[in-house]
Amino acid sequence: MTKIVLLGAGNVASHLYKAFKHCKNTNVVQWYNRSINSIKPFENEVNITDQLDQLIEADVYIVCVSDDAIETLTSALPFKDRLVVHTSGSASLYDIDKKLFRGVFYPLQTFSKSVNLDFTTVPICIETLRKQDYKLLQTLGENLGCKTYKVNPDQRPALHLAAVFVNNFTNQIYRIAHEITERHGAEFDILKPLITETARKIQDVSPYMAQTGPAKRNDKKTIKRHLKLLDNEHHEAIYKLMTSSIKKTHNGR
Amino acid sequence: MTKIVLLGAGNVASHLYKAFKHCKNTNVVQWYNRSINSIKPFENEVNITDQLDQLIEADVYIVCVSDDAIETLTSALPFKDRLVVHTSGSASLYDIDKKLFRGVFYPLQTFSKSVNLDFTTVPICIETLRKQDYKLLQTLGENLGCKTYKVNPDQRPALHLAAVFVNNFTNQIYRIAHEITERHGAEFDILKPLITETARKIQDVSPYMAQTGPAKRNDKKTIKRHLKLLDNEHHEAIYKLMTSSIKKTHNGR
Ligand SMILES: NC(=O)c1ccc[n+]([C@@H]2O[C@H](COP(=O)([O-])OP(=O)(O)OC[C@H]3O[C@@H](n4cnc5c(N)ncnc54)[C@H](OP(=O)(O)O)[C@@H]3O)[C@@H](O)[C@H]2O)c1
Ligand SMILES: NC(=O)c1ccc[n+]([C@@H]2O[C@H](COP(=O)([O-])OP(=O)(O)OC[C@H]3O[C@@H](n4cnc5c(N)ncnc54)[C@H](OP(=O)(O)O)[C@@H]3O)[C@@H](O)[C@H]2O)c1
Repeated sequence: MTKIVLLGAGNVASHLYKAFKHCKNTNVVQWYNRSINSIKPFENEVNITDQLDQLIEADVYIVCVSDDAIETLTSALPFKDRLVVHTSGSASLYDIDKKLFRGVFYPLQTFSKSVNLDFTTVPICIETLRKQDYKLLQTLGENLGCKTYKVNPDQRPALHLAAVFVNNFTNQIYRIAHEITERHGAEFDILKPLITETARKIQDVSPYMAQTGPAKRNDKKTIKRHLKLLDNEHHEAIYKLMTSSIKKTHNGR
Repeated sequence: MTKIVLLGAGNVASHLYKAFKHCKNTNVVQWYNRSINSIKPFENEVNITDQLDQLIEADVYIVCVSDDAIETLTSALPFKDRLVVHTSGSASLYDIDKKLFRGVFYPLQTFSKSVNLDFTTVPICIETLRKQDYKLLQTLGENLGCKTYKVNPDQRPALHLAAVFVNNFTNQIYRIAHEITERHGAEFDILKPLITETARKIQDVSPYMAQTGPAKRNDKKTIKRHLKLLDNEHHEAIYKLMTSSIKKTHNGR
């Protein structure tokens, strides 16, 4: 039974807490947050605290706080030589105070407190300095039903950056499509099956192989017609840049 | 029983043929393609031809040929006053020769001959000049198990343009994420659950509400770190433009 203390009570901590609760071989022995109110509702099922000096012993401390707070919070921990990990995609492992055994347990997924998520689909990227810490975190991830991946200090920030592309930028592309349909009195909903299929397709084939459309075909007539239809400079800039990006990838131009 | 003649044998025609075959109230009475070879394999189950003057009578002729060929092909049809529709998102209804009853039956989805697709998830956008033709096409779509949408000449091109954003541009964003992970020796596969979840999220909430991340938070530190990591001018240009686009949407900047 792995004893866990969770620190933080935001999107990630809330989902992790729920996931660990349904997990046989793990035990969240304590939940810390600097403001106690957000964890008050759980006081009957777990030991809660807002005092760092009241933290109890555990096999691993999972620090799910804002990137900028990792350094300050871990320096303030009143113990040493225990395993403390953060869950950030971009913060360094060395942001954790060096008196501790340091590690990263980065769940590569998008979490919102209010949106349910099947945790077994979350890939966990693990970075540690000590072999035994890696083993522990790997087992922890597997207990959650997750796939785990060993990553190095070069790979994790790259994955985080790539995640910004496929999550934030893709979502902004959806947003612009929403603006275009609204502008012309069409329903955005009609696009949803295509959005689903576009994401599904690349589960089996590479994005390179999956590409189709006017930019790839260099169908100048359609591209011209599209640019004429766009009455928003900003949308036009994105259309042009993405079209030239596709051409570059597929025609070397 | 609606009698259908299919014209063309590419991605769309092949999927439509398969879908109509499994459909109780429709009957593909003939399949035309200018090159007979691609439909030869079906000669035992359907009347095939490569001669326009051998086309038989039907309730609707569905022209699934390249956009540029719609005009020439429909002018060459040896009959008039019959319902002829094309399946294009961007070609005009008026590309169909005016001796015919004209319409559009635009399946808003991405089709590749080799990729299986559940046709019931395909939205069908319908445009006609005559009311009775709309009814027939609507029933046709419903027989396929599809949702049908009445669109006008302003809406359909806008939907096609928006489809290029959510399909081609999103796919190119995936491609760049693939390049970034490869460049840093990380596995693109780790991103796949996030890609799935990003597409799933907007089935319930608007892309505006679904947005998160450094650009929306205006997290300058992370943005700077990302830009430093990007060693490709072209990726950098996309990162900057998409980041400013998100800022514009969420902070009016
Ligand atoms: N959200 C995601 O999709 C996601 C995905 C993967 C990884 N991550 C990473 O997971 C970590 C947490 O993200 P999140 O989305 O859960 O954040 P969040 O929802 O914004 O929650 C932030 C948490 O940090 C606490 N906190 C902030 N500043 C603090 C300080 N100076 N001292 C102590 N506690 C402080 C907050 O406490 P209060 O409640 O008192 O404000 C809150 O509990 C970050 O490293 C993030 O990069 C997030
Ligand atoms: N693919 C999609 O995802 C998709 C989605 C929605 C709508 N559409 C629309 O559906 C239509 C067909 O697209 P597709 O992807 O199925 O095309 P495709 O796979 O490229 O097939 C094109 C078909 O058109 C025929 N053709 C081309 N030029 C011709 C000509 N001058 N005369 C007679 N036939 C000619 C070809 O005949 P050969 O076999 O002899 O070359 C072939 O059967 C287009 O209007 C497209 O905009 C496509």
